[in-house]
Amino acid sequence: MDLALGDIANLVGGQLNGDAGIPITGAAIIRDANVGDITLADKAQLASQLADCRAAAVLVPPDVTPAGVPFVTVSNVHASFAKIVEHFRPQTNHQSYGVSAAAHISQSAKLGRDVVVYPTVTIGDDVQIGEGCIIHPGVHILAGSRIGKNVTLYPNVVLYENTVIGDRVIIHAGAVLGAHGYGYETIDGRHILSAQLGYVSIGDDVEIGAGAAIDRGTYGPTSIGEGTKIDNLVMIGHNCRIGRHNLLCSQVGIAGSTTTGDYVVMAGQVGVRDHIEIGDRAILGAKCGVMNSVPAGSIYFGYPATADREQLLKQAALSKLPEMRKQFKVLQKQVAELAEKLKDAA
Amino acid sequence: MDLALGDIANLVGGQLNGDAGIPITGAAIIRDANVGDITLADKAQLASQLADCRAAAVLVPPDVTPAGVPFVTVSNVHASFAKIVEHFRPQTNHQSYGVSAAAHISQSAKLGRDVVVYPTVTIGDDVQIGEGCIIHPGVHILAGSRIGKNVTLYPNVVLYENTVIGDRVIIHAGAVLGAHGYGYETIDGRHILSAQLGYVSIGDDVEIGAGAAIDRGTYGPTSIGEGTKIDNLVMIGHNCRIGRHNLLCSQVGIAGSTTTGDYVVMAGQVGVRDHIEIGDRAILGAKCGVMNSVPAGSIYFGYPATADREQLLKQAALSKLPEMRKQFKVLQKQVAELAEKLKDAA
Amino acid sequence: MDLALGDIANLVGGQLNGDAGIPITGAAIIRDANVGDITLADKAQLASQLADCRAAAVLVPPDVTPAGVPFVTVSNVHASFAKIVEHFRPQTNHQSYGVSAAAHISQSAKLGRDVVVYPTVTIGDDVQIGEGCIIHPGVHILAGSRIGKNVTLYPNVVLYENTVIGDRVIIHAGAVLGAHGYGYETIDGRHILSAQLGYVSIGDDVEIGAGAAIDRGTYGPTSIGEGTKIDNLVMIGHNCRIGRHNLLCSQVGIAGSTTTGDYVVMAGQVGVRDHIEIGDRAILGAKCGVMNSVPAGSIYFGYPATADREQLLKQAALSKLPEMRKQFKVLQKQVAELAEKLKDAA
Repeated sequence: MDLALGDIANLVGGQLNGDAGIPITGAAIIRDANVGDITLADKAQLASQLADCRAAAVLVPPDVTPAGVPFVTVSNVHASFAKIVEHFRPQTNHQSYGVSAAAHISQSAKLGRDVVVYPTVTIGDDVQIGEGCIIHPGVHILAGSRIGKNVTLYPNVVLYENTVIGDRVIIHAGAVLGAHGYGYETIDGRHILSAQLGYVSIGDDVEIGAGAAIDRGTYGPTSIGEGTKIDNLVMIGHNCRIGRHNLLCSQVGIAGSTTTGDYVVMAGQVGVRDHIEIGDRAILGAKCGVMNSVPAGSIYFGYPATADREQLLKQAALSKLPEMRKQFKVLQKQVAELAEKLKDAA
Repeated sequence: MDLALGDIANLVGGQLNGDAGIPITGAAIIRDANVGDITLADKAQLASQLADCRAAAVLVPPDVTPAGVPFVTVSNVHASFAKIVEHFRPQTNHQSYGVSAAAHISQSAKLGRDVVVYPTVTIGDDVQIGEGCIIHPGVHILAGSRIGKNVTLYPNVVLYENTVIGDRVIIHAGAVLGAHGYGYETIDGRHILSAQLGYVSIGDDVEIGAGAAIDRGTYGPTSIGEGTKIDNLVMIGHNCRIGRHNLLCSQVGIAGSTTTGDYVVMAGQVGVRDHIEIGDRAILGAKCGVMNSVPAGSIYFGYPATADREQLLKQAALSKLPEMRKQFKVLQKQVAELAEKLKDAA
Repeated sequence: MDLALGDIANLVGGQLNGDAGIPITGAAIIRDANVGDITLADKAQLASQLADCRAAAVLVPPDVTPAGVPFVTVSNVHASFAKIVEHFRPQTNHQSYGVSAAAHISQSAKLGRDVVVYPTVTIGDDVQIGEGCIIHPGVHILAGSRIGKNVTLYPNVVLYENTVIGDRVIIHAGAVLGAHGYGYETIDGRHILSAQLGYVSIGDDVEIGAGAAIDRGTYGPTSIGEGTKIDNLVMIGHNCRIGRHNLLCSQVGIAGSTTTGDYVVMAGQVGVRDHIEIGDRAILGAKCGVMNSVPAGSIYFGYPATADREQLLKQAALSKLPEMRKQFKVLQKQVAELAEKLKDAA
């Protein structure tokens, strides 16, 4: 698997600067690179880190010229480095696996061409799966679900009844789509579950992280718009309607019936209350707690979350509060003394 | 599957106001309703939203009289709408499935009447399962667990050894009951796991959300009281004793050995520290961080959480702090001028 | 299974103080103990709780002498109590189970001696598993993964391709190692997933909680150092390098490319941003939000997190702010009056 540096340059169509015979035994980022590895530096600022790096060679774009280490210049550093990494650690090809006899597939389910189904998968009645899908082991697809083309479901994904999935969707291990919404009416001291007749609907090109949970709607869909990317352990409540091309980072929680526009960004651990609207291109800062609707294009952060300008003023004032408190006591004393003097003067 | 509006009125025993022959092709909430759908309006305030809705008809309670759209009046809007939705999207009947030959069930396990077990389920030694339970695919029930009657375990639920589950409990996909508690003693720089001999005990009518995790007790139970409802991705630490009829919303975390009374409510993303007590009917606001015991009946919020009155004062004062800071500087100047004048006057 | 108290004393090699014939029917902590149980009191301060406890006897260390209840004195209370609990609730012995014929194991996978593999497990091509490992049902180990000796993978754990696991590692149910990192480049309004060619590498003696998610690196490893303990539902982003002997409590989230030193402690629900460094032995308080690198040995808390001294001053000042606000208004009035008097006097 080892390659000479010259072969590496050929593999990526790059310009070699150094000895073509240097043996390269692996590929790693600067932080992790060891003797024999090739590494990458996509910005000139990384040059100083290269000095301490044990890598045998470095992949660079045309505007970076490292000193004291052989380098290969390419136009797209990341695409080229990926090619080298794939040489040293080839990716698994699932496509040829076919449908396992150890999967449990309802006779009424319909699978498209070139679908891969691993052992221990269960597929319920009337499920439809489009061509080119890869269904990893331990995935359970309940009755009535419809899945588009070229979808990948990683191990142990669960789709409850009637889940609808678009094309080219990727859902990571352990994610759960379609569990009951958290809606209760309290009658005579007991919490009674509301109707749970809806489902989850996922647009094209959506990606959903490991362990994420998206609850079904009460009567109809909880929906995720085309192109939206959802990170690990995110929770989306029942009846939410998430727009297109949102970025919802890890551990975000969105309560029921809230809607978001397009291109909304929520950083990690953000919490959003129920029944509000987050406008197009709004950005919600990490860990903020959103209690009211957010206008399109605005940036909110803090707990409770407010517009960024207001929050910055608050935070700045709070930072100076201990000092202001001292000054305040000084001022109280000065005023008391003035009052005393004025009394004397009178 | 389409129904005339008159047939819909008959289905729910409602009073028709409009043309009985209108074809109805589906049912959806106002936000999602399309041409041909019937929708519902449970409050008069929704009338304005109806104006923009494309639904062909609307289901209403007696005190709502919509204008410009055919409607059906019923006494219980939600129960009736559920009936209509179920007509258009029939629910799966699991009851007739029986016990799959592709499940792996210990010979010493005992299953009651009418238990449904799907393929790929594993059931360990000496497990007992009461009548009418539904065990979905990918569920793993480890040795010694005892499950009551009419319990539903959704796909990929894991019950560790000796878990005890009451009657009519619902546990959603991927929830894990009985993993090791997070208790370590640090000896010579290494963290050594404490005894992990306990189990998890769940009362009757409890519901547990997707991906929730409840750790076993050290020597005995971590227990969840009757009727308590736990949302997705909630974490409950070892030795906790959660009371009856609590509502623990999504992503709540409760550290070890904490106890709660009855009817406690924790909103989303609340964090509660270990070894404290949350009193009956206490309400903990979304995302708050609770560092001390909370008296019965109180409302706490904020980070760190305090009683609501105190927190409101703090938040209000903080909101006005930037303005107060300006005024403070003005006052400092005024006092300096007064001091100067007084000196001149003296 | 019942034992006389004298037999209990013999079992743990303890000194009996009371009637050897008392029947003992179970073992439970003071809070949970019922008639017939033996309980434990590891500190003298628990004596008052014992007064209200129904236990038939109590296990104590030499420096605790309870009144009014039979007791057994031992040198190590917790080890001895564990022995008693194990008598009443014997732990499952997995070791004899062997490799199930109902597991799906690639012919190119290599399993060491005494490996236990339960039904429904899948093991991919070229996977290596060291001796003494226990692989519970529903675990899926994808191609190229390498697992050390005496590792326990609880049900439904998922290891993506090329995961590397050290010796004596414990991973709890539903944890997911190696899902895609959350890295996107936005081109023409679409978020395009970055390269996902790396893997997850776990050191010896690491423990990982239920439902935790650790994403693969971009080109190389996301790594967890030896002896680190990770609680339930923790999220660790791509390219992170977590040091040795860290304690990461439940629901912590660490964004991509962040590194931690050794012996770092993060309490529950902490959030840490991407690309920063947390120094050796730093302690991050519950629920804090860390936006900048944290020096070794420091204690940070708050949102945004700061050093503890600074945060305590802020919090104290904030607590007194409502009172200060009142005093400020008084002071404003006093100054106005002084100004008036001075004008009169002039």
